[in-house]
Amino acid sequence: MIIGTFGPEGSYTEKAAKQWNRKGELHYYDDIQDTVEALIHNEVDCSVVPVENSLEGSIPLTLDLLMEHQLKIVGEVIVQINHCLLATGRLSDIKVIMSHPQALSQCRKYIKSHFRNVELRPVLSTSHAAKLASGSGDIAAIASRESAKRYGLKILDENIQDVNENYTRFIVIGNEIPEPTGNDKTSIIIYLQKNRPGALFEILEEFADKNIDLTKIESRPTKKFLGDYLFHIDLKGHIGDRHIKETLEKIKGKVGMLKILGSYPAA
Amino acid sequence: MIIGTFGPEGSYTEKAAKQWNRKGELHYYDDIQDTVEALIHNEVDCSVVPVENSLEGSIPLTLDLLMEHQLKIVGEVIVQINHCLLATGRLSDIKVIMSHPQALSQCRKYIKSHFRNVELRPVLSTSHAAKLASGSGDIAAIASRESAKRYGLKILDENIQDVNENYTRFIVIGNEIPEPTGNDKTSIIIYLQKNRPGALFEILEEFADKNIDLTKIESRPTKKFLGDYLFHIDLKGHIGDRHIKETLEKIKGKVGMLKILGSYPAA
Repeated sequence: MIIGTFGPEGSYTEKAAKQWNRKGELHYYDDIQDTVEALIHNEVDCSVVPVENSLEGSIPLTLDLLMEHQLKIVGEVIVQINHCLLATGRLSDIKVIMSHPQALSQCRKYIKSHFRNVELRPVLSTSHAAKLASGSGDIAAIASRESAKRYGLKILDENIQDVNENYTRFIVIGNEIPEPTGNDKTSIIIYLQKNRPGALFEILEEFADKNIDLTKIESRPTKKFLGDYLFHIDLKGHIGDRHIKETLEKIKGKVGMLKILGSYPAA
Repeated sequence: MIIGTFGPEGSYTEKAAKQWNRKGELHYYDDIQDTVEALIHNEVDCSVVPVENSLEGSIPLTLDLLMEHQLKIVGEVIVQINHCLLATGRLSDIKVIMSHPQALSQCRKYIKSHFRNVELRPVLSTSHAAKLASGSGDIAAIASRESAKRYGLKILDENIQDVNENYTRFIVIGNEIPEPTGNDKTSIIIYLQKNRPGALFEILEEFADKNIDLTKIESRPTKKFLGDYLFHIDLKGHIGDRHIKETLEKIKGKVGMLKILGSYPAA
């Protein structure tokens, strides 16, 4: 099995991909869009991309790509994030800190208190930052412990994120919805017919009536006009379960659009 | 009146601040956090920061700062965004394109089709990018028409965002909730007591019962653990309106936390 992953070697997505399937052959892509397109163009059997972080929230691009393309979510993986400060030189040599924008945000307080006058340079991924830091003594990267090993960097500090408990949820996108396991999640996107009072409430009522647990509800702009939203909803259960299937059919008649992204074993 | 704005001169936030109050004296800050802290430290009478874009969605940092600090939203401003490609040199000279990460995202398709091999460098703000581009012939900035004038750059292309209709909503944070005007919005944050099925539904039921229109509902992580959320809700009406006040009091008894951010005239 060929698995597409986001970021060069040492990325957290690589870690997620290995957690998902130890025996897969990994292909590395520069950004989330390329990782997703690799699946669409059949270069890989599935792709792993980050979807949500416990400190920073959703990855908007991943949600938007799920809306734009016909993709199936076939799995999810949760990885603990322990950001390290990596460099070839010493702390006092650091002039630039590079990392993925979300990683820079996750270490916002640490950076503000220790490196007030250092230039922050956001790059495509944490492992890309590590790769770049390996080529210059005055550049530090915020990246994983694995990246330090991979690119021969010293770990100057570790666990530097502002909140200790830092987890990222990754989704695996592929071609076939897996069979029910008894502990599954289903992801959907809905667009309400009208933005009138109570429209969202009526949809949530259908789920509440059947005691279906929503693990996540997140709005994203439709990109048509300001204040017009899609809702990304994750719920407990499999599309093959009768009560889920019936509820979604009922909701389909009440909304402007219902897109089922897939059912997959919960992480 | 002294108004804090995000970004050096020429930023979209400066435009929003001028739209809000033509006569205010503007103070410029490097990032959203500093702009907010300027108000907390009484350096300014109010501050203007972006909160939501019609293509990219919410600005997570702004939402998180509203949760972390005791801030009052006293107004909102909507600004149309027309991104231009700015440089001192010619199109063929461009080796690096700089802009705010959201602006780079908003022009994702344009960049991919015209500049596949150009380095993208995210910086703190669009106007900061314009300032940097003015110092080098091979750097282009994605920024406003105003930035071109301000920093002596040529407009190589304009309206380059992927979707023509591109608006950003800014909030004004200040010290006193304005009186009702008859066309107001109220912003709140709630934390549900438990993440059990139907918990959010029960809250929305209260609003639906009183025919209160929710213009926005957005989840943000609590930063405690993955899958634990706060909800940012905007609704039509003023906290001084009886039905709004009573509904919020009722909801207060049902949730873990209710934070009222303010009531202000709708843009």
